[in-house]
Amino acid sequence: MVLLVQKYGGTSVGAIAKIQNVAKKVLAAQAAGNQLVVVVSAMGPTTDVLIAKIKELTAAADPREYDALVSIGENESAALLAQAIIAQGGQAVSLTGWQVGIRTEDQHNKCKIINVDTRRIKQELRAGKIAVITGFQGLNSRGDVTTIGRGGSDTSAVVIASALGADVCEIYTDVDGVYTTDPRLLPEARLLEAISHEEMLEMASLGAGVLHPRAVECAKVNDMTIAVKHSHKTGKGTLITMAGEKLNTVSGVAADDDVAKIGLLHVPDVPGMAAELFGALAAAKINVDVIVQSIHEEAKKNDISFTVNNEDYARALKLTEEKARGWDGCRVAGNTDVAKVSVVGIGMASAPGVAARMFSALGREKINIQMISTSEIKISCIIEKKELKRAVKSIHSEFELDK
Amino acid sequence: MVLLVQKYGGTSVGAIAKIQNVAKKVLAAQAAGNQLVVVVSAMGPTTDVLIAKIKELTAAADPREYDALVSIGENESAALLAQAIIAQGGQAVSLTGWQVGIRTEDQHNKCKIINVDTRRIKQELRAGKIAVITGFQGLNSRGDVTTIGRGGSDTSAVVIASALGADVCEIYTDVDGVYTTDPRLLPEARLLEAISHEEMLEMASLGAGVLHPRAVECAKVNDMTIAVKHSHKTGKGTLITMAGEKLNTVSGVAADDDVAKIGLLHVPDVPGMAAELFGALAAAKINVDVIVQSIHEEAKKNDISFTVNNEDYARALKLTEEKARGWDGCRVAGNTDVAKVSVVGIGMASAPGVAARMFSALGREKINIQMISTSEIKISCIIEKKELKRAVKSIHSEFELDK
Repeated sequence: MVLLVQKYGGTSVGAIAKIQNVAKKVLAAQAAGNQLVVVVSAMGPTTDVLIAKIKELTAAADPREYDALVSIGENESAALLAQAIIAQGGQAVSLTGWQVGIRTEDQHNKCKIINVDTRRIKQELRAGKIAVITGFQGLNSRGDVTTIGRGGSDTSAVVIASALGADVCEIYTDVDGVYTTDPRLLPEARLLEAISHEEMLEMASLGAGVLHPRAVECAKVNDMTIAVKHSHKTGKGTLITMAGEKLNTVSGVAADDDVAKIGLLHVPDVPGMAAELFGALAAAKINVDVIVQSIHEEAKKNDISFTVNNEDYARALKLTEEKARGWDGCRVAGNTDVAKVSVVGIGMASAPGVAARMFSALGREKINIQMISTSEIKISCIIEKKELKRAVKSIHSEFELDK
Repeated sequence: MVLLVQKYGGTSVGAIAKIQNVAKKVLAAQAAGNQLVVVVSAMGPTTDVLIAKIKELTAAADPREYDALVSIGENESAALLAQAIIAQGGQAVSLTGWQVGIRTEDQHNKCKIINVDTRRIKQELRAGKIAVITGFQGLNSRGDVTTIGRGGSDTSAVVIASALGADVCEIYTDVDGVYTTDPRLLPEARLLEAISHEEMLEMASLGAGVLHPRAVECAKVNDMTIAVKHSHKTGKGTLITMAGEKLNTVSGVAADDDVAKIGLLHVPDVPGMAAELFGALAAAKINVDVIVQSIHEEAKKNDISFTVNNEDYARALKLTEEKARGWDGCRVAGNTDVAKVSVVGIGMASAPGVAARMFSALGREKINIQMISTSEIKISCIIEKKELKRAVKSIHSEFELDK
């Protein structure tokens, strides 16, 4: 008997009729001879409504009470899905994070899962029941409810699947799977049959919102295969699986327009300047993405450019300007009119020329590259925002991703 | 240091602003030198909204999933109240039924609390915190969440107060306390300073909605004094306390219009007939209130009349008609146009003539008494529904309850 872990997101259980649909799907998978563990998110906007309530009380929520409050959306959806399965003639039981024994770190809000006690789940499965488990939440050593951050239900599902030794972790969502690029940007985008964990990790970090990066990381560590599928359509979706099974030179093109650029010109070339600037940004919890530094040899001056997301832009600019005041002759320029286009591919490391092909694809379209950043399996270019769609199209076609 | 247990009902925490008010009240009580344990109900209509969702899925909810679902309203209000206290500069911690260790029977829905583990509560109190505990819910021996029935938060508060050896259990609600009769029916109704548990039990059972009868019963068993007060006004409220401290001949007049009457005429006077009828009603979970039987000596026939609440009326009538078909010459008559008026008083047993005074008060108003039922501390009369208000007024004045 195959053990399947399925995860349904907030939009998949966003209304009673949708929960009934999910129940039908789950029962069909059981009838096909599988043991079923189902992990659910809160119904649609429930978590946001709860957060709005606590924000009416305080700007700085108590971390413990925040978790106690926002975790209840999952309790609701789990109980309703279990009830829907029972109403359709199945056997099911809803289990919360504390009932299962999903142990997390002691801290609150964005904490990590340490381990999962599988005894209660296995007991329910042996009794022929479908175990419906709340995503997003766990229990710390003090006996208090914790949550593991937004998008955490993906991670819950992968961790539970790993602890149970499940054969596959199916993530049901509101898209058909992972595409070579965002199909809303480029109609030629092709659904990928398979992609490696590493590539998916880069795609997720680069703005492909299908799956939470932590869930992919966790699947990679545990060698867990994830299947991303549409929750209310049939279709094979995309398998996120171990590298080596499929080796794409380039798997996809990621587009991200939530990018703003800050340039510091003529920074004195004295050791510790970069550390001071980025230390200050880190202390302000501003996540810096691409960083490029170039040296004016003759003048002993540096130019430093970096990107942040739009939400952090104003704060980052202000902080950078404050720092620049102390550095003689230094000038700051900000620009929110930029975007990031990236290619991702596990085969890239062993296939020279990918960068050159990407740059020439952009060059053909006369798209100016403002910054470049590379890793072993991805290349990102910062370009003008209005060029993003053309850039994606040109690169997608260069690597024949529509074929 | 005095240990106070306070309970706030659904209307008292029905909105964020109201929760902030409650937080202020709780902090004031702590500042006055008390240790505080607060028990809360769900915010306003939350529980009803959850029940409506599960009813969309099924007419017969799974008892376990029903409890898992409907208990979360209290999780929400407890976390929000704890957060509100913290936001006002206090120290608080929300605790669920399972976190405290409120152990109940194994069955679901209307189960009884077996005991309360006070260790976690005492630990939080020692740390200077206000413990905010979810009412209505507990945990059974299987590790599943249970609920203890509507109005159960009153009972939770009394049980927790008793387990902790609290000095008093304050129940905050949307009325000023316990009145001699319903002030909406009779403006002369007077707020009682004190009433015995037994009297309150009769008042509660007779339709005075201030307090859940089970909570009063539980307080009586544990010698726990309850103070009923208005949640957003100052005022001494009403003390529900041990008999003997105050001895009222008649404490109050209770009016109940949720009454329907069923009469069986000419029942053959054969042993076991009543047992058969009321056994069948009990098996159908129909709660029978007043029962009156009279014998037609010459004909060896009985007339049996009884009352049920309006919700059960149709089912009770159908069942009675089925039974009557088997009893030769028997006729069934139903009437929903009735109401019950009662007087309650712990001193009644030792003060003869109370019944006579009640009947003459009704007689003066030419109100016909259809049925009479008495206990040691109460007398109830079934009358025509449209006479209820006049009946209350006349009896209230007869016993000088407005003085």
